[in-house]
Amino acid sequence: MLARIHDHWKPHVVAQVNDSLVKLVKFRGEFVWHHHAAEDEMFLVISGTLRMRVREWSEEREVVVRPGEFIVIPHGTEHLPIADDEVHVILFEPQSTLNTGSAGGERTVAELPHL
Amino acid sequence: MLARIHDHWKPHVVAQVNDSLVKLVKFRGEFVWHHHAAEDEMFLVISGTLRMRVREWSEEREVVVRPGEFIVIPHGTEHLPIADDEVHVILFEPQSTLNTGSAGGERTVAELPHL
Repeated sequence: MLARIHDHWKPHVVAQVNDSLVKLVKFRGEFVWHHHAAEDEMFLVISGTLRMRVREWSEEREVVVRPGEFIVIPHGTEHLPIADDEVHVILFEPQSTLNTGSAGGERTVAELPHL
Repeated sequence: MLARIHDHWKPHVVAQVNDSLVKLVKFRGEFVWHHHAAEDEMFLVISGTLRMRVREWSEEREVVVRPGEFIVIPHGTEHLPIADDEVHVILFEPQSTLNTGSAGGERTVAELPHL
């Protein structure tokens, strides 16, 4: 299904599991710092290498997530996904989660396409 | 973390995302037919080939799930996972989901280990 995704940073809904959606997304480049006030977010890397910058207690650190690995960003945690090369990701998160979270702005995708 | 799992059919909790748990599990052989009354269940295959037998409207069919692919079993759907060779799986399901669901029996694991 990834072949049908052309835009970067635009999650596509592929399934629902209870109250969560499963979304496929392609990352390339640097996104925007943001957090989700009430929602945890899971990023499972299918291909490529994701660099996740995380700010906790005003310290900034980086977690490298490789294919077959995942990271859970707890609600309230500021994070910035970076993909030096293209990264393919499965997201698990509630239906209500906006891609840009607290940041908003022009990269927000409010209506997600379904595959 | 998979290296730390030795038993088959025994899910290990590795993370929580909102109300769902992420569990790692190794399958080998044939499990038992069962369903989950209220919980959807997602099986994402990391390695090996999972054969998922599914009964819907009294018809039985098989879905083959390969590495990088996943299947969502909606609540109420009878299913039987089969692993001819070892299969490594990420499960995504509510905390309350029992591995044997409606079937119960000796293969039930009520208290899941955490990794």
